[in-house]
Amino acid sequence: MERKTIAVVGLGLIGGSLAMALRGFEDYQIVGVARRRETVDYANVHGVGDTATTEVKEVLSRADVTWLCLPPQGILDFLAAYLGDFKPGSLVTDVCGVKTAIVDGAKRLPPSVDFIGCHPMAGKEVSGIAHAEGSLFRNAHFIITPQPGNTTEHLELMKRMGEYMGFRDVVTATPEQHDAIIAYTSQVMHVMAAAVCDDPDLFDCKGFEGGSFRDCTRVAALDVPLWTELFSLNAPALCRVIQTLENNLRAYREAIECGDREALAAKLEHSASRKRQMNLEGPPRGDSYKPEG
Amino acid sequence: MERKTIAVVGLGLIGGSLAMALRGFEDYQIVGVARRRETVDYANVHGVGDTATTEVKEVLSRADVTWLCLPPQGILDFLAAYLGDFKPGSLVTDVCGVKTAIVDGAKRLPPSVDFIGCHPMAGKEVSGIAHAEGSLFRNAHFIITPQPGNTTEHLELMKRMGEYMGFRDVVTATPEQHDAIIAYTSQVMHVMAAAVCDDPDLFDCKGFEGGSFRDCTRVAALDVPLWTELFSLNAPALCRVIQTLENNLRAYREAIECGDREALAAKLEHSASRKRQMNLEGPPRGDSYKPEG
Repeated sequence: MERKTIAVVGLGLIGGSLAMALRGFEDYQIVGVARRRETVDYANVHGVGDTATTEVKEVLSRADVTWLCLPPQGILDFLAAYLGDFKPGSLVTDVCGVKTAIVDGAKRLPPSVDFIGCHPMAGKEVSGIAHAEGSLFRNAHFIITPQPGNTTEHLELMKRMGEYMGFRDVVTATPEQHDAIIAYTSQVMHVMAAAVCDDPDLFDCKGFEGGSFRDCTRVAALDVPLWTELFSLNAPALCRVIQTLENNLRAYREAIECGDREALAAKLEHSASRKRQMNLEGPPRGDSYKPEG
Repeated sequence: MERKTIAVVGLGLIGGSLAMALRGFEDYQIVGVARRRETVDYANVHGVGDTATTEVKEVLSRADVTWLCLPPQGILDFLAAYLGDFKPGSLVTDVCGVKTAIVDGAKRLPPSVDFIGCHPMAGKEVSGIAHAEGSLFRNAHFIITPQPGNTTEHLELMKRMGEYMGFRDVVTATPEQHDAIIAYTSQVMHVMAAAVCDDPDLFDCKGFEGGSFRDCTRVAALDVPLWTELFSLNAPALCRVIQTLENNLRAYREAIECGDREALAAKLEHSASRKRQMNLEGPPRGDSYKPEG
């Protein structure tokens, strides 16, 4: 009996890590696809997937599942270029951090191809296949954005792949919900980190930075083409979140300026208790002196 | 020959960690001082310092070095209450995250007592002696804010203590410089984390948060009384930094709103290259696809 095939198109950090994390999944063979010969060679030497190739069309024609692990515009362009090349009855999915634009782009696929948008919420500050690792997705969220036409079989397959790769959970949302929330939980964090680095004091602060500064600015050295696309493809939702943050910062500034310590304490208690309620990998509440202040 | 004495007043997370980190320093005996009997008992049982006591005045009268490890207002109140009780010729220092107000408060000490302000830039999201550890200061900055009257002997002693406790470096600044920079590198990070948690979408975002969100909001569950004091004692500098951040965020919002991808990319490249130049525990520059987007 022939083994079924999962194609992973694009072997950067995410695609490479997916190809590693999926090895051994059920009875599937994992085939990496990259444009550059040296990436394919690296993949074959380092076990990124079971095998790798530059032959896109040949792989698409026999892949039961195709993961598109390219930058956002790259996924849209790939879908347009290879519309008719996916295997009929197959599942196509992606890893893009915005979903409405991608799911819209996938609507042009033939009806026999089932597209389920996906956003594996994991990453590193470095990119490229050399940094790929099969454990990248442990404890991360696996978000899928199903559409009315998706088959139950493919939805179940997505979940099994997510579980196999070690994700913490499988989260379902509409593409629009996803994009609105991700503007808040991810995109504005990157805008903020960038905005902090625009402060004229940046280069005077060496020797004075602590954990909070390192943590917040960590993502500022971002992949510019990628994030330009992500922000642009989600501009209205992102701009709303930035505006809310500007307002909330101004409210803090005014509370600090007016010098009413009780009012400031009440405001901080409000925010801090919201954070504690969220209970993300969070601190238990302490009761006495606390730094880094 | 009698051993010299270092008193650590206040055995919370920072004081407790200092008392542990200083054990074995030269020929000094480390004496912890706390108000509550149970804190003293805990310290004696767990080796937080060489010994601990509630007898403040007795310890101050013989301490060659006194570390004030209390909240900001607590340090000011302690200095006022025990002005005449420090050993003549001794060194007094502190751990407060703002320095101008503390150094001003210390100006009322008798001329025979030498005060050198200090800010050990380390911490955790939890507080209290039970979380103290001698390794807390490894790789952190040890900031001191000397004044014209300080003796060379005491300045050298501060540096030796900082090195002994495992700090990465000893950084010198005026109290005013310290407060201006810390408003940027630490205080505004905490304001930002709190402001992010004020977003009405906070509780909808479970399942969609990634590393950047966890890292940025980590410090939002802050110790409210402590940070109310820190922000209030540094209000003008902090408000200037918040205003700059509001402006920088608005500039990003406008760049995203206007839809000019090239202009947005140039702006992101500007911020990202500044971050890379800073080179804090930082990412090498990647060259292809990168998440968590």
